[in-house]
Formats: sequence, structure tokens, C-alpha cells
Amino acid sequence: MKKFLDENFLLQSATAQKLYHDYAKEMPIIDYHCHLPPDQIADDINFNNLTHAWLYGDHYKWRAMRANGVDEQYVTGGASDADKFQKWAETVPYTLRNPLYHWTHLELQRYFDIDAVLSGKNAKEIYDAATAKLQTKEFSIQGLIKKMNVRVICTTDDPIDSLEHHQKIARDGAVAKIAPAFRPDKAMHADDVPALNTYIDKVAAVSGIEVNSFDDYLKALKNRHDYFAANGCKVSDHGLEQIYAEDYTDAEIGAIFKKIRANEAITYTELLKFKSAMLVHFAYWDHEKGWVQQYHLGALRNNNARMLSKLGPDTGWDSIGDFSQARALSKFLNKLDGTDQLAKTILYNLNPADNELMATMIGNFNDGSVAGKVQFGSGWWFLDQKDGMTKQLNTLSNMGLLSQMVGMLTDSRSFLSFPRHEYFRRILCNLFGDDIENGELPNDIEWVGKVIQDISYNNAQKYFNW
Amino acid sequence: MKKFLDENFLLQSATAQKLYHDYAKEMPIIDYHCHLPPDQIADDINFNNLTHAWLYGDHYKWRAMRANGVDEQYVTGGASDADKFQKWAETVPYTLRNPLYHWTHLELQRYFDIDAVLSGKNAKEIYDAATAKLQTKEFSIQGLIKKMNVRVICTTDDPIDSLEHHQKIARDGAVAKIAPAFRPDKAMHADDVPALNTYIDKVAAVSGIEVNSFDDYLKALKNRHDYFAANGCKVSDHGLEQIYAEDYTDAEIGAIFKKIRANEAITYTELLKFKSAMLVHFAYWDHEKGWVQQYHLGALRNNNARMLSKLGPDTGWDSIGDFSQARALSKFLNKLDGTDQLAKTILYNLNPADNELMATMIGNFNDGSVAGKVQFGSGWWFLDQKDGMTKQLNTLSNMGLLSQMVGMLTDSRSFLSFPRHEYFRRILCNLFGDDIENGELPNDIEWVGKVIQDISYNNAQKYFNW
Amino acid sequence: MKKFLDENFLLQSATAQKLYHDYAKEMPIIDYHCHLPPDQIADDINFNNLTHAWLYGDHYKWRAMRANGVDEQYVTGGASDADKFQKWAETVPYTLRNPLYHWTHLELQRYFDIDAVLSGKNAKEIYDAATAKLQTKEFSIQGLIKKMNVRVICTTDDPIDSLEHHQKIARDGAVAKIAPAFRPDKAMHADDVPALNTYIDKVAAVSGIEVNSFDDYLKALKNRHDYFAANGCKVSDHGLEQIYAEDYTDAEIGAIFKKIRANEAITYTELLKFKSAMLVHFAYWDHEKGWVQQYHLGALRNNNARMLSKLGPDTGWDSIGDFSQARALSKFLNKLDGTDQLAKTILYNLNPADNELMATMIGNFNDGSVAGKVQFGSGWWFLDQKDGMTKQLNTLSNMGLLSQMVGMLTDSRSFLSFPRHEYFRRILCNLFGDDIENGELPNDIEWVGKVIQDISYNNAQKYFNW
Repeated sequence: MKKFLDENFLLQSATAQKLYHDYAKEMPIIDYHCHLPPDQIADDINFNNLTHAWLYGDHYKWRAMRANGVDEQYVTGGASDADKFQKWAETVPYTLRNPLYHWTHLELQRYFDIDAVLSGKNAKEIYDAATAKLQTKEFSIQGLIKKMNVRVICTTDDPIDSLEHHQKIARDGAVAKIAPAFRPDKAMHADDVPALNTYIDKVAAVSGIEVNSFDDYLKALKNRHDYFAANGCKVSDHGLEQIYAEDYTDAEIGAIFKKIRANEAITYTELLKFKSAMLVHFAYWDHEKGWVQQYHLGALRNNNARMLSKLGPDTGWDSIGDFSQARALSKFLNKLDGTDQLAKTILYNLNPADNELMATMIGNFNDGSVAGKVQFGSGWWFLDQKDGMTKQLNTLSNMGLLSQMVGMLTDSRSFLSFPRHEYFRRILCNLFGDDIENGELPNDIEWVGKVIQDISYNNAQKYFNW
Repeated sequence: MKKFLDENFLLQSATAQKLYHDYAKEMPIIDYHCHLPPDQIADDINFNNLTHAWLYGDHYKWRAMRANGVDEQYVTGGASDADKFQKWAETVPYTLRNPLYHWTHLELQRYFDIDAVLSGKNAKEIYDAATAKLQTKEFSIQGLIKKMNVRVICTTDDPIDSLEHHQKIARDGAVAKIAPAFRPDKAMHADDVPALNTYIDKVAAVSGIEVNSFDDYLKALKNRHDYFAANGCKVSDHGLEQIYAEDYTDAEIGAIFKKIRANEAITYTELLKFKSAMLVHFAYWDHEKGWVQQYHLGALRNNNARMLSKLGPDTGWDSIGDFSQARALSKFLNKLDGTDQLAKTILYNLNPADNELMATMIGNFNDGSVAGKVQFGSGWWFLDQKDGMTKQLNTLSNMGLLSQMVGMLTDSRSFLSFPRHEYFRRILCNLFGDDIENGELPNDIEWVGKVIQDISYNNAQKYFNW
Repeated sequence: MKKFLDENFLLQSATAQKLYHDYAKEMPIIDYHCHLPPDQIADDINFNNLTHAWLYGDHYKWRAMRANGVDEQYVTGGASDADKFQKWAETVPYTLRNPLYHWTHLELQRYFDIDAVLSGKNAKEIYDAATAKLQTKEFSIQGLIKKMNVRVICTTDDPIDSLEHHQKIARDGAVAKIAPAFRPDKAMHADDVPALNTYIDKVAAVSGIEVNSFDDYLKALKNRHDYFAANGCKVSDHGLEQIYAEDYTDAEIGAIFKKIRANEAITYTELLKFKSAMLVHFAYWDHEKGWVQQYHLGALRNNNARMLSKLGPDTGWDSIGDFSQARALSKFLNKLDGTDQLAKTILYNLNPADNELMATMIGNFNDGSVAGKVQFGSGWWFLDQKDGMTKQLNTLSNMGLLSQMVGMLTDSRSFLSFPRHEYFRRILCNLFGDDIENGELPNDIEWVGKVIQDISYNNAQKYFNW
């Protein structure tokens, strides 16, 4: 019987162990998509306690606590940090087989050298020990980043963001490259016309470009895109239910934009046309600059209006949708490709029923110009666990070239979640190890080791071109 | 090599064996959703023979026989019970790898102490031996229930049902609690307006409430809901292609109902609105009484009109649909949650492509008020087999809390199918066993054993509150 | 550690090895659906070199090369055959875990007795060795067919095809039965009215039947259907995004056809009605003649317009769609079944998310008249790999009768891909082997061996009735 979470965790064969320890383990981390707060990095703060570092903002844990019958006061409410931690610790034994169980103990080991299995009984002891460490310089935000051997972090930023924290980091120097990512979701969210108008005004203000027409809006947004580039940005990101690829004319979009600025209601078709046009323009700029564009597709968000009104978005009320994906995605990518304006692209799907669709869609636009030009992104959000990652890796293997994958990203809001890269690498090494042991791959450790190092680090380094 | 179907069937590790034999095996059964006939329980009949007990009404076996080229006369037709059994026995060797193969031999072992592998050759011998046992008191319906250590059975009943059999059982006493379940599918089936009118008249008659308006109809149905509650009912159930969640006003529904009562055709939109309204009202009552509401979603029924006209529904002509599920389900649950009228809810999906959608949807409405309030139901119908159960258990594990699951149900029409609970528990123990052996869970048998006992029995007992 | 691709490749247990070597291995091959060119068989040509035999027309390899960053000149462009091979060989090590990696080395072993692992380093050596063998009589097209123990090949042919090559083969004799298959996709492709008109003219010319009405068109096509039958055809095939099953009247179709002949635009509804009618008529003829009809559902084709315009269809720009499948498929099969005109039918799905839908749909129309009458086809195209095949086999096992499956087909354009039958059989034997070793099936090698032989060969022989 293997010991829980020992050095060979998830590595079920000698070959897998060799591949991980000799090839994957020491590779640095490029976390090319996450939601880490740049201000905390810039200020290099220390967390007050383990609840602050671990439970604030982590809707994965919140959902588990709620499913376990924990009252909201201990989740996001007014309870003390110590009491919240106690409730979380009492929940942990009920998370058996959930990735939280692995992540929790991996993070306790890797950051805090705590090997114990967390429960209500040892909650206080662990809370105090970790909290004490979190006060030290070694455990400042940048200390945590350094400890995890992270070379690059891409945050996720709104076009109107000043990027002041990124600038401060650039000025002060940091333990890793901290780059922004251009995420213009709000800029195309015409579902709420008044909110969009307010947003457009902000874009105008921050860009210094008066916005009276759609062309002006594009100019102002492009100005921000340029600004992001000037501040080290090389990736964009979009969070969408599905790609919008309605046919439209510039005249139509101009007219729709006028209605928006006049705060008039727009039809559903107009909404789709507007979003379709925005996506195309963003994509043109990404291609122009040689950026990588990312599309996160398929989340059904904000399902619980009652809790949303209390806590706001991203607090644990989102789930997996069953949107139609293939046709619009094909049409959109084809339009860009047709004029040779398709940037390097990563497609992420939230519903694993779409894995094969995505893994084959990328092949339609891999034209030999760049190795792995269009990528099927690593298991995302709910799929960021052993089964989900395994399915993504196997699907990509079966229908594309795993060897050209740019690897893992955390998509996380927590500085304690970098061990998910390790988790991914262990799973990756285990798959290759099994194949070699079973005679499904030649026992060429050197070559397979190189491929694993590429997926762990080298491919991303080359693809994003830092 | 492991012996076929020995005591460690499906238990591939020592840990799995320990978990099953020391923790799961002896737990009683709560079969909270099935289609067993209450009259047979009330009368505590004995089956005439093994065909009667095993093949009458079992469309799983019928489909296998038809796929194997067996003429309908031996399936549901005029052939003798002995000849039908012979044809079934000849089919069994062709069901290798189908759950029928396991169920068949598990049932022969558990009920009849017959270890043989059934085939055409030993059919007569086994038929005679089992038939002889079926004549004894020990093998009466209640004898079978007792033999399987069943504590609670929920049948599935139409609102107009008199529940006389449940009442007789309550008066006479029985070896287990036999409760009805409120399944009002016909009450909202406005797809066939004349049939619905006939049905409404029956509701009026049985409730003693004249139905001239939609409000009357609700009153009459509510009267039945109350009547079910008075007869020990604590669960409702709905068999639907998908949830209906159209916007509607009371005035609209009133008008639609008038058209229905006038036997006028209604539009598709009116149909959806009517169904949407009915679902909401049923859900309100379920919440009011603290019942558990169950939704079985995604079956495409009655595909073969020719055979349907000969044999009626539920005779083996149903399959798995690909309906859109997420948005309407979210809208419906959100509406109920918004006024704090969301009852404890179990969602079952027939298309496993929707597993992840369902497993994350429940998290949107688990608000901490009840542990495991919204449940992702166990593998249903076609998914009620090793692969299907494993996928459901893994998906729930990865995206929710398996530890809070209320476990297995048979959904069966046969008194010989209770060993499916054993089947489920073996699979469950094997998953945990593997995880422990592989070092993916700590070797804490006591805790994992407790979790397995909870899933096997305790959670359901607490959740349904018998 | 198992050696790569040794005699027990993919056979992970002693039982699996026994089943494969003693039962599956020697069974002949029936390749009942492929895209092999009948002219090359008729002329019994020799390939100029390994590039000619292996890389011409193989869009699987092309996609891998493009994803690996190989310029199109080395894929389908003007580079020399030797250079193209070099680039392919350099790509092979990057295809680890893709089925191409297994196929490539299996084909080198089985046809050429080359055990080496192909890479850029040994590319020239292998190219020369294989090319030399390809010049010999033993390696002519028919030599390759004979080497692989192939008994029947069904090509894929357009109704207007003269079948001259099949006739020549019949006259000359051949190492295997080479039958045509009736694939009338173009005959119903009213998406492009002018192209359809040109096509209709060709049907008229080849059948000698003037086409002025829809009835004439049916007569002319039926004439070709009869002609195919006279030339040994026993199967039809359809490549569709989804089944079309709109309601229509003969009058409507007559009017739509008039519009088509007048080169007038038709509406989307008219298009669907027209396609629906065509499918029904083709199906009637298939039933009349006792043919097997095949439906390949779910490909999203020709996604990349830029490359399509350069290279034409079937050059690597297709992917997996997410079309709605269940309802129309049910309606179509039910219509045919209702008048007892449902031919033996094989359903293939490209999106594995539809596996369970398909595996249960077939059960709706298996009425006992023919064993395995409606079949769930083997893993197709992107799914024709270990995971995809395994999922198809498991789904069919769980929801139908694997024992009645008609087994594997290559769907290939290459005479070097017959080892995929071996690949399939090894996977099949391994699944049964695991089940027996785990105690999930009785250790009845003789019976399981018979079932495996049935799936490998006997079932197809009986089903297609050669």
C-alpha cells in the first residue's frame, strides 16, 4: 500500500517516478493564466493568517463547505478567521475524492512542511503553525512565488485597468515576470446596455479618446490594447458562454452602437452581431501584435440570484453549461484564418462533453506555420482535477499532438495553488509511465523526458515568447 | 485469476474487501425510488414461477432478447412461461459484459443460492429449482424484501391513486416501511389535451373538488398531495425530457387551462408555459411539506410506434436523449430558491454527457442550510451499471461531496433486483479501496468506512427523515 | 516492463493473450466500409515508394505534421517524396500517445518486417527498405490485401460511378471479394442547387432516364441502385451531420424539385424536407434488397475555407460537431419501422458524447427479427483509437449486446491500414481478458473465444450475407 501523498504521489510505476523526479520536477513554472491580484504582488504583503491566504476568495472551498451544511457566516460571513478555518477543517474529511482534498494537503506540505491530515481535531494547531510562518519574509507573496519556482505569471486585467501595480512591480523588480492579460469581457457585454455605457465612458476617459461612434470605441480600446502591450502584455483572454459568429456589416454595428450610446434597447440579434464584431476586432489586434488569444468557453454563470445579490459574482454560484460550440467556433476561426489574421489561440472548454470537439477543432487551423499554433487548453476550473486533466490529456493525445501542448496554468485566485502545476506534471508523467510499462510506448526515457519538460515549461516559453 | 462472482466480486484490493465486508455489507437498504407494485406487497403474493418473478415487466431483459434475435412471442407474447425462460436462458451467454449478466447471476446467488452460470443447457433445472423456492413462505414478496434487509421502499404513484394498498400494508404491518411517492407526470401532460381532460376529471372526482379553473385544478391536486402526505409520502418524482422554465403569468395559465378544458388546441409556447407553471406549484408544495423532490431528466420515450401500439409504454422502446438541460434547470431552481421555496432536490440525468453539468448545477443551490441539500442522483436506468455508476460517483466526487450522497436506489419493477444495492456498494468500496492502496487517500479505514456507511444508508435515512 | 509493440501488444493479461492468439488472430478480415480506390485494386499496381503508399491521401498524418509546424510543401505540396517522408519521420516522435504512433509501427512491422522506431535519424534507411519491397509482386495492392488475410472489401462509390473497376476485378478475379457501396451524398446535397443540378444531369445520363420530375429522379437513382446490386453491392452509406426527418408530402417534394431544376433558391425548410425525403427513399430501396444501410453522423466538415480552396475536401480540415441527433434519428427509424421497411442499419457517431444515445437508440428498433439488426458502429475516424474503441465497446456492452456486433472496419484510404483490425481485436481481447481475470466474467475461454471470433468475422459474414 502506498503512503498517502508521499514523494511518489500519483506516480504508480517506477517509470512514472523516474520521469517525474528526473525530468519534470525541477522545471520552472509559467502560470500563463490566473486571477492573482497584482496589487498584493506589488506590495509583497504578508497574509494575516491561513484563512486570509487560503479561504478568502476561494469559491471552490466555499462550495464544499456549503454542500457540507456549513452556514454562510462561516463561509463568507462575519465569523472570525479562526472560526472559519475551524469549519473548513471540519469539512476537509468530507471532501475525500474531491481535488480539494489533494490540493489542501499538497499545499500544507509544499508551503508549510505540514504532513498532517487536516481535520477539526488538529485545525487550531495547523492554523497557528501556518499563520506563524505566513508572518515571515519567506512567506510574503513574493516569497511564496519564489518558493514555487515561478518564472512568469499572467494576471487577468480589464482594459480600463491602469496597470499601476504591474508598473510598480516592473520598477521595483520582482522574483518573477508579472505580466498583465487583456480581458475585455465587459467591453462587449451589451446584455446590459446602461452598464456598458458606463463602461464605455470609462474606456473613453482612460484612453483620452472621445467615443461618439463605434470606430471611436475601437480606437479607444485599441489604445488600451497598445497600452497593455507597452506594459508587457502578450496574451488576451475571453470568458464566454460560447463564441459569437453572426454575420454583420460595419454599418449594422455602427447603428447598434448608436442605439447603445442612446441607451436604447437592442434586439437579441443585434446583441449577437455586436459581440461577434467585438470578438473579431480583438482578434485582429491580437494577431497584429503576435499575442496569444485565449477563449474560456462554456460556463453558466450566476445561477443563484439570491446569493449573487448578497455576495456578487465569482462567489461559487457558477456551473457547467451545455451550449452549442462547434459551428460558431469554426466560423469565427475560419474568418480570421481566411485573411491570415488568426493569432496563436488557446481554446478551453468547461463541459468535458466538448473535449473531442475542441481537440479536433484545433486541427482545422493548425496550418504548419507555428508548432501547436491552435491549442486545446488544459482542464479548466471544475475540470482541473485528476480525472478532468487525464481526460483532457488523453483526448489531446488521441486527436492531436500532446507533445506540442503548452501545459498547465492555475486559473487561480490563491498564491497557495501553484502546486497544481506539480499535480499536473505527476499526472502527465504517470500517463507516460503507464504507456511505457505496458509496452504502448518504447522505453526511451530520454525522449519522453524531453517531451515532458517541453510540456511542463519549454513549449510555453517558446509559444508565448517571453 | 479471481473466481467469477465470488464473495469479493468487484472488490479488487484488500482494502476494498475490508471496506465492503466490515462496513457496507450489513447496512440495511433504503430503496427511495422504484416502481414496485404496492398491491403485490399488500397481498404478499408468491410468484407462480421464475419467469413470473423475473421476466414479466423487465424491459431490460426484453431488449436483450430482441437484440439477440428472439421472436416477440417468447418475450412478451403467447409462449409458455417455461419456453420464455428457456429463450432468456439461451440469451444470457450473449449478454457478456452487459449488467444483465451480473445482475442475473447475483440474483440467482443471493435469492436462490444458485451458483451456476445460466445458459440454455441448465435452464430447466434452474427454472424448476427457483420456481419451487418461490412457492414457499420465505419467498413471498415480503419474504424477498426481508431477505434483502430492506427498511424502506418508496413506490411511484399517480396523484389519483387511492393508495389503498399502502393503507392495507400500514394496517397489516409489513417487513419494511412502504411509502408512496407523488408522481404527477400525467397531471401536466398537456401534449395530449383530450387525455389531460379525462385525467383532470379523475382528479376532480377523487379529490371531491370541482375543477372549473386552474385554481380549482391546483386545489384538487394539492388535496391529493395532502392525501399522499397523510399516507406517509415524503417524496415526489417527475419523469421529464427536460425541465420547463418558461416565463408565465397566472392570467396566461388561467387562459391556457380554459382552452384545455374546452378541448381546444394549445400552442407549443402555451404548452411550455403550462408545464412550467405546474412544475413550480408542485415544487412549492414539496417545499412546504419538507419533502424531497426528484427529477428524472433526459429520456426519449416511445420511439417505436409500431411496438408501442402493440405493447404500451415501458416495454423497451425508450432511449437516451440529447436535450438541452442547463439553462432551464438553473432558471427553475433559481426561481424556487429566490423565494426560499426550494425543497431538498435530487437531479438524475439519463445522458452521461450531462454528468458534469448536473454535478456542478447542484453546487449552485447548496447554500449550507442542509448538508447535501441538492443531490446528483445515482446512475439511472441505462447508467445503472458498473461504468455508469463509476462515472457518476467519480463526477460527484470531483465536483461535489460524495460523502453527502444519499446513495443507491433500484428504480426497478422487480422484487429480485435489490442486489443492485450490493452491486453499488461493491463499486463504491472498490473506488475508495483503490484510492487508499494508491496513496491517493490516507489509510484511515475507520473514517472511510463511516463515509461508506453514510452513503449506503445513514445519509438517506437523515435526508428523507423517516 | 513490456517491450514496445511485441507479440502481446495491448494484451495486458495471460487470458487476453490466450484469447487473441488462439481465437482472434487467425480470423480473416471483412472490411465492410472503407475508401480504398477500386482502380488501384483492379490494376493491381505497385506503389512507387513508401510516401506514395503511406502519405498520399492520409489526412491523419497531414494534420499531425501541420500541428508539428511542418510547412505545407512537405505535406501536400511540391517537395519530393523523399523529403516528405523525412518530414513525416521527424514528426513521428512527436506523435507519442496518438494512434498514428501505434499504426505507423504496427504497419512497418506487419507489412515490412521492420521493428525499428521511426524517426528522422533512420528515415532514409526505412524509406529505402520499404520502397524496395513495395516494388515486388508480393507488395502489389492485391499482394498487400492477401498478406492481411482480407476476404471482403467494400469501397465507397457514388451512384453515378460506372463500377468499371469492380467489373474488371470480377472478370479478372482477385484475392478478395471487392464490392461497391452505394453512397448517394451528392444526390441529396441541395445546399448547392447548381451543383446538384449538374449532378442530376449526370444521373440522368448514366441511367438513361430523362429527369423532369422528382419521380423521374427517383427512377434514375433507383436504376443506379439496381445497377449497384447487379454489381455485387450489398451496403449503402451516408455521411451526414445529422439525420433529416422533417415531415413532408410528395407534392411538396415535387415542387421543391421543380425549383431545384429551375435553379431557383430553396428555403432552409425546403432543403430539410428534400433531404428528409431522399433519405427515406434510399432507405426503402435498401430494405427492399436486404442491404445494410450505414449512417455516419456528426462530422463538421470543411472548416478551413482557405486551405479547402487550395486542396479540396478530405485533406484534413474536418472535425467533430455537436449536432442534435436523438429526435430526428428516432423519427426516421420509426417511420421506416412503422411500415416494416427498416433495413439492417449501422449507426456511427463521431462525437463520443453521443455514444450512449446511439447505443440505446439501436435497442428501440431491435425487434427480434434479425440478431443485431440495428448496430452501433465501431469507433469512427477520430474515435478509431484505443480510447475511442474502448469507449464504444464498453458503451455497447453496457447498453446492448456486444456479442452481436459486426466488428471493425478501417474507413481508410490506405492499403497499409488493415492492421487496424488487429488493433481492434487486441483491444477487444484485452477487455474480455481483464473481465475474466478480475472475476467479472467466468473463465470460459471457449465461449468467450467464440464470441470474439463472431465479433471479428462471423457476425459480419452472416449480417452482410456474402
